[in-house]
Amino acid sequence: MSHKLKDVIRNVSIDCVIFGFEKSSLEILLIKRARKPYQGKWALPGGFIKKTELVEAAASRILFETTGINNIYLEEIAVFDGIDRFPNWRVFTIGHFALVSPENYSLSAGVDTTEVKWVKIDELPKLPFDHQKIIDIALSKLRTRVRYKPIGFELLPEKFTLPQLQKLYEAILGKNLDKRNFRKKINKVDLIRKLKEKETNSKTRAAYLYKFDKHNYNKLKEKGFIFEL
Amino acid sequence: MSHKLKDVIRNVSIDCVIFGFEKSSLEILLIKRARKPYQGKWALPGGFIKKTELVEAAASRILFETTGINNIYLEEIAVFDGIDRFPNWRVFTIGHFALVSPENYSLSAGVDTTEVKWVKIDELPKLPFDHQKIIDIALSKLRTRVRYKPIGFELLPEKFTLPQLQKLYEAILGKNLDKRNFRKKINKVDLIRKLKEKETNSKTRAAYLYKFDKHNYNKLKEKGFIFEL
Repeated sequence: MSHKLKDVIRNVSIDCVIFGFEKSSLEILLIKRARKPYQGKWALPGGFIKKTELVEAAASRILFETTGINNIYLEEIAVFDGIDRFPNWRVFTIGHFALVSPENYSLSAGVDTTEVKWVKIDELPKLPFDHQKIIDIALSKLRTRVRYKPIGFELLPEKFTLPQLQKLYEAILGKNLDKRNFRKKINKVDLIRKLKEKETNSKTRAAYLYKFDKHNYNKLKEKGFIFEL
Repeated sequence: MSHKLKDVIRNVSIDCVIFGFEKSSLEILLIKRARKPYQGKWALPGGFIKKTELVEAAASRILFETTGINNIYLEEIAVFDGIDRFPNWRVFTIGHFALVSPENYSLSAGVDTTEVKWVKIDELPKLPFDHQKIIDIALSKLRTRVRYKPIGFELLPEKFTLPQLQKLYEAILGKNLDKRNFRKKINKVDLIRKLKEKETNSKTRAAYLYKFDKHNYNKLKEKGFIFEL
């Protein structure tokens, strides 16, 4: 079901950059548009705000209606204001982003979309509107964030290996990190706890599993730190 | 001169929280409104975006037209979206903030304003719209920022004393700081340089003057640090 233009504010919309991490890759959630403009093209999940709806509620509703993903915290990035970013009339869009673990969510194409899927960040198609710019700004925000706040809790499974954690940072930062140096730094911030179990599905030597120390994670998230990588 | 409603986007506006620091107090720039709604009330400088104008340009123009302040970098805070925040129809406003040294700017009331002045943050009148909320969010952003980034360059005169610098932090954080502890921490981050001069207009014992070390200041601004106070 599509929303009628008379029920929405026609010049203020929401676009969502949902980051996921799976099999060593940073991914972004895309939908295939069922509606003009750019019908049939892959794009970010988005839509117009309703006349009596707050921005945060609109962002959650639009993400849920277009992708089936519910109950996640969407954070405002910025307003995107290009005069011709929407081809028919001027639309300001409020970019939002979130980090999720894809395995925790089942996807279902809904309002104004025919398909929804995760796409690796280095395999994105050419996107309509200014969606590539919105992704670029979201990614730069995420890159800044990993230097001040712990990250990974929302993106990794509950138990993970050190190579997985390093791959997550590498995927976000877009560069390889030195293994010894990474481990030294991660140990220094006292963020993770080594478990007695090892991973079970490894083809090579099984690595130990780790968990985040929830108390320290939340404390560091609150207080911030400098994590120089 | 007032802008015609037909030239602006009637549901997207800008509001500016301009922080200044003078005589130990954190201040905010207010204008007296010459126009309905809330004609004659003190409020934040603000206005509507023009139809072919980008947000950043609109923010600079509006600040200049209403207060005479020109050429400062305004940073986007967030979108404020209350359904009834503007009494006549729904208006989303994009909050912006900036830090300036009041002595560097002369004020002049312009478009839609009859007066403009600096008001101490603890002496603000009851403000119309959601302007108090916008100030609260701007201030909380500023408080977070002083923990990660050096601050003061835009707010203090070129040469300043350690008591002045401490008072700036105290004004932003809204609490008194221990003098010895503050000095220890400020020395540790290697941000300021002691000069050979002392202040000249002091009634008590003259304190040494300091300058920011521009190179280190910019490096720390770029890299961030944790400045726990």
